[in-house]
Amino acid sequence: MGPGATAEELDAVVQTVQAAGGSAFVSRGVHRTIVGLVGDVEQFESLNLKAYPGVADVVRISAPYKLVSRENHPAMSTVYVSGVPIGPDTFTLIAGPCAVESPEQTLAAAQMAKSAGAALLRGGAYKPRTSPYAFQGLGEKGLQILAEVRTEVGLPIVTEVVDAHDVDIVASYADMLQIGTRNMQNFGLLQAVGSAGKPVMLKRGMNATIEEWLMAAEYVAQRGNLDIVLCERGIRTFETATRNTLDISAVPVMHSLSHLPVVVDPSHSGGRRDLVVPLSRAAIAVGADAIIVDVHPDPGAALCDGPQALVDTDLDELAHVVRTLPQAVGRSLVLVDS
Amino acid sequence: MGPGATAEELDAVVQTVQAAGGSAFVSRGVHRTIVGLVGDVEQFESLNLKAYPGVADVVRISAPYKLVSRENHPAMSTVYVSGVPIGPDTFTLIAGPCAVESPEQTLAAAQMAKSAGAALLRGGAYKPRTSPYAFQGLGEKGLQILAEVRTEVGLPIVTEVVDAHDVDIVASYADMLQIGTRNMQNFGLLQAVGSAGKPVMLKRGMNATIEEWLMAAEYVAQRGNLDIVLCERGIRTFETATRNTLDISAVPVMHSLSHLPVVVDPSHSGGRRDLVVPLSRAAIAVGADAIIVDVHPDPGAALCDGPQALVDTDLDELAHVVRTLPQAVGRSLVLVDS
Amino acid sequence: MGPGATAEELDAVVQTVQAAGGSAFVSRGVHRTIVGLVGDVEQFESLNLKAYPGVADVVRISAPYKLVSRENHPAMSTVYVSGVPIGPDTFTLIAGPCAVESPEQTLAAAQMAKSAGAALLRGGAYKPRTSPYAFQGLGEKGLQILAEVRTEVGLPIVTEVVDAHDVDIVASYADMLQIGTRNMQNFGLLQAVGSAGKPVMLKRGMNATIEEWLMAAEYVAQRGNLDIVLCERGIRTFETATRNTLDISAVPVMHSLSHLPVVVDPSHSGGRRDLVVPLSRAAIAVGADAIIVDVHPDPGAALCDGPQALVDTDLDELAHVVRTLPQAVGRSLVLVDS
Amino acid sequence: MGPGATAEELDAVVQTVQAAGGSAFVSRGVHRTIVGLVGDVEQFESLNLKAYPGVADVVRISAPYKLVSRENHPAMSTVYVSGVPIGPDTFTLIAGPCAVESPEQTLAAAQMAKSAGAALLRGGAYKPRTSPYAFQGLGEKGLQILAEVRTEVGLPIVTEVVDAHDVDIVASYADMLQIGTRNMQNFGLLQAVGSAGKPVMLKRGMNATIEEWLMAAEYVAQRGNLDIVLCERGIRTFETATRNTLDISAVPVMHSLSHLPVVVDPSHSGGRRDLVVPLSRAAIAVGADAIIVDVHPDPGAALCDGPQALVDTDLDELAHVVRTLPQAVGRSLVLVDS
Repeated sequence: MGPGATAEELDAVVQTVQAAGGSAFVSRGVHRTIVGLVGDVEQFESLNLKAYPGVADVVRISAPYKLVSRENHPAMSTVYVSGVPIGPDTFTLIAGPCAVESPEQTLAAAQMAKSAGAALLRGGAYKPRTSPYAFQGLGEKGLQILAEVRTEVGLPIVTEVVDAHDVDIVASYADMLQIGTRNMQNFGLLQAVGSAGKPVMLKRGMNATIEEWLMAAEYVAQRGNLDIVLCERGIRTFETATRNTLDISAVPVMHSLSHLPVVVDPSHSGGRRDLVVPLSRAAIAVGADAIIVDVHPDPGAALCDGPQALVDTDLDELAHVVRTLPQAVGRSLVLVDS
Repeated sequence: MGPGATAEELDAVVQTVQAAGGSAFVSRGVHRTIVGLVGDVEQFESLNLKAYPGVADVVRISAPYKLVSRENHPAMSTVYVSGVPIGPDTFTLIAGPCAVESPEQTLAAAQMAKSAGAALLRGGAYKPRTSPYAFQGLGEKGLQILAEVRTEVGLPIVTEVVDAHDVDIVASYADMLQIGTRNMQNFGLLQAVGSAGKPVMLKRGMNATIEEWLMAAEYVAQRGNLDIVLCERGIRTFETATRNTLDISAVPVMHSLSHLPVVVDPSHSGGRRDLVVPLSRAAIAVGADAIIVDVHPDPGAALCDGPQALVDTDLDELAHVVRTLPQAVGRSLVLVDS
Repeated sequence: MGPGATAEELDAVVQTVQAAGGSAFVSRGVHRTIVGLVGDVEQFESLNLKAYPGVADVVRISAPYKLVSRENHPAMSTVYVSGVPIGPDTFTLIAGPCAVESPEQTLAAAQMAKSAGAALLRGGAYKPRTSPYAFQGLGEKGLQILAEVRTEVGLPIVTEVVDAHDVDIVASYADMLQIGTRNMQNFGLLQAVGSAGKPVMLKRGMNATIEEWLMAAEYVAQRGNLDIVLCERGIRTFETATRNTLDISAVPVMHSLSHLPVVVDPSHSGGRRDLVVPLSRAAIAVGADAIIVDVHPDPGAALCDGPQALVDTDLDELAHVVRTLPQAVGRSLVLVDS
Repeated sequence: MGPGATAEELDAVVQTVQAAGGSAFVSRGVHRTIVGLVGDVEQFESLNLKAYPGVADVVRISAPYKLVSRENHPAMSTVYVSGVPIGPDTFTLIAGPCAVESPEQTLAAAQMAKSAGAALLRGGAYKPRTSPYAFQGLGEKGLQILAEVRTEVGLPIVTEVVDAHDVDIVASYADMLQIGTRNMQNFGLLQAVGSAGKPVMLKRGMNATIEEWLMAAEYVAQRGNLDIVLCERGIRTFETATRNTLDISAVPVMHSLSHLPVVVDPSHSGGRRDLVVPLSRAAIAVGADAIIVDVHPDPGAALCDGPQALVDTDLDELAHVVRTLPQAVGRSLVLVDS
């Protein structure tokens, strides 16, 4: 639909498609609304939808994903998280603790993140853990801590939601909802975040192909939410020197297939502190729109993934990299006012 | 706890553990109740729990999974699904359509299954699909069809639940709840089925290690349900000649680590009709306690996974195999009355 | 070519093909000779080769492998190793020590193998080792020991060759040449064994697809040797509970694509003694034509892969399995005279 | 040994070690000679080798690889290829055609490579091919073409050797010998190139772990050649959007474990022209010491891997990247005189 299309114009299109025996999925991003049609393509062409009021263009898509396809939308998208952009011209650092443990730890980590150049704060209140005996996060108390730290430090919050039951409560605090690697094909959860009215960061399943990842994004988009960023965080391979294998090629491959921004997680892919800065450099150079990095004021005491959290000199090095390397590939670092 | 332990005796143990600063997880199977303790092992030993009334034994477990560990419970378990056993002395054929499509198709598939020797009927009413545009199942209408076919044919039902919201409705119809491969680490769903009071079939995540699979089973067990069977259904590898690679070694490996029964799915692992019978023979011979097989009266018209569904001569061959091969490895086929 | 085709008749076909600008590869098995043509298919058809003397049939092949394709040769092949068959109606146990260490150890292992039901003796004199600091085998001295043990025990020998330089010396002792997993794409070695006049056991590369494996076999066949058996020995995956993941599906998949016999190695795939017997049962049941198993009189002292070698009760159990299970799938155990 | 150690001093050390029942492996690089000892470590310490003339230092190594270990040699090595450095302070572009097809094609590709900033010319005369029916390279004629082009263009040559038989002839033309991915564990070939007196580029096996790769380098080093560069060229995973998955993390992981330079091959890992420039940027940024890139004057007509060869605007973009990005990570591009 064109930028000025009204709700009535949209409804008219949807009803015409349904009357012809098809399904119509409406997805609204900040800058555009896309209606995806599923059904008999020949018949849709006979409807002459391009002539309807408010319709900007009609495009036939052959990829199994439609709303997230670049074939459908050649211009790259920018997703705004409470005003902070993630998109093709900028570079955004997202940083914070793997898990919210206490107000003090979270505040300290947020200040570290901001001074390193972060424009968004990450931090988990609900943690999906392989073992039922591992720390599962502070839940809503963690969200409250994040909200207080946001007020104090001024960085919008990215936080994970692990259960469809929790989407409303998490969305009431968060600026961006994160779907973790183990939930990439939790279709009920994808649909719930698609309806929650907040931008979504969709991490790649550690065993997911590029196409499955795009199909998962399509589940979110189908519920009307195109404010999605894709996050490459490593795939499972035979190599055990790193926790997972960062699939750096996924960034340009995704940029060729989808208009959605792509983020790289150099912390969880490698699982080793000494790899975070080199992999951050690689991510910036390959063309990632953002990176998401674990920082912790006291990694040795972290309740979750301490061995990969940055602190001290490593963090200084990261701060230097994000302030210098994006320019070399034609991007500018996104900074928030202090 | 011993077989005759009372609720009061159980409570006394739980409260003692909690008073000592530990956590106690109670899991009830048909034949036993296990209390898993997490916390300071030294202190637990000082409690002398073995002397408490109703306590049969106290065992120290070092594996990260406790309730499902064989270290904890050396005797192999038998899980009963509305009276049909899955366990170490028997061999059980589970068969039916991948998806419930109509009453006629489901009834025909169930009759095929039963005449082939099946003691349990499989069939999906809720289907997790990679694409949001693929057939998603009939939902509760599918469950009603399954229930009617159960009445007519006499086979208890195994059916998948894909969302924690649906557990109650699915459990009200099903004899056994199935967790699919994409949901093996959907921890909210695992906990919900753990509380639902029905036996659970837990499929292995296609990228899950043996240990992660056992940890997922532990999530179910922790909520009080030890009536779990594990289902190997193929892992994702580089090989593309088959849909996934059936990890046949997982059966004896699991039998060495856990007391839970192990089922093999020769249909979804290979994704090819011509492999179902040879892989079924391999599964029986390696020591699987059951297999779960797709059958369909008209595979060419199937809405889901038609290329792997058995019919006609292949099904006759399977019927012959399940009636002859289990004896060669010291097991007897479980049959229901006609 | 037909069974009675003469060398002159064969030459006439080859020269006709070459005159037409094509290449002709001649491969002789015990029971047939196949001429593979590569070049302009349309032109070949115009040559009317079927009318040439000695030509039994002309078949157009579309698979990238030709000589080893079942499309080309629908009847399954039997490969004879100094009289011992490996083929579709029989089941053959190949057993022996991973490495030849001494005359005493080799003789003891061979006697164990024979009493368990083995018809062929395996044993390595040249060992490809990941580390240059590991035991590399006894070389020709090992071959001499194998030859002496063959005389004493009466089992033909299967032994590995790791370098094209060594093919002649190994072939002068061995009854069957083995190509190991690390050398499956050592094309010079494949061509050398293809010309050596002895049957070949081609192990699957631990990272090789089914198609690559067949292409490797095609390299051997192209040099004129169709007496090839394929050996599935596990592929590399993310799972670490077993050394490699036995791809049991590879047996029926290979039988559908190629006329060559398929062997399973349950020892190297799992890398654990407790898995050898269950995986041997699975291999027999799935339809393997043979299995190859490590045995050692004193596994604790073995210089190579001791943890997987069978001895005592495990070996007794294997002996029972090979004497009973093949019948259940319509095969008879191959036994040599004592 | 110290820089001025004589052959006699070296011999004295070797004989002392052997007299004590150990093995000594001597490896000479351009700048140092290392003697690796294998055997009883306690006894070696009693020999007081540090007091021997010519001995610079004695270090105890615990990694399974010794000569290539950074534990042994903390300073990063620079390998010189006929004067062109590959090492920690510089960045080297290696470019050329996948296969030598004709004098004209090779010369044109070499001129393209040089004008893009290459200091070394790659090109294959012997090609290991999965299919015996694919183009296998021009052999010695290809080497002669490379030598002529070297004279004309002024770039030293990197070319592959696939068989131990060919090492002498290839070494007589080449400035650097390449071991391809399928031959990483062809131990006879590794030993042959280790003795050939030319620098070696050792490509990672597509299924090889980091440790196996280092062990393969150790085979080369053990024969007396420490002028080895390691080349990451993608590993085999489940993802099919790219030919292989470039393991970008392998660069910093290798730099932490070994003193050897690391090269990245962005052409073969992705197998797609559009990924070569982004992956080259990632490689430079992550810290690679060189990249090796396919260029071809007419990719559509290439006999080998045309779909990934650079030409025209892509090549211009690469030329820009190698002239600007290395500075951003503290390196300078190596250029040869025109």
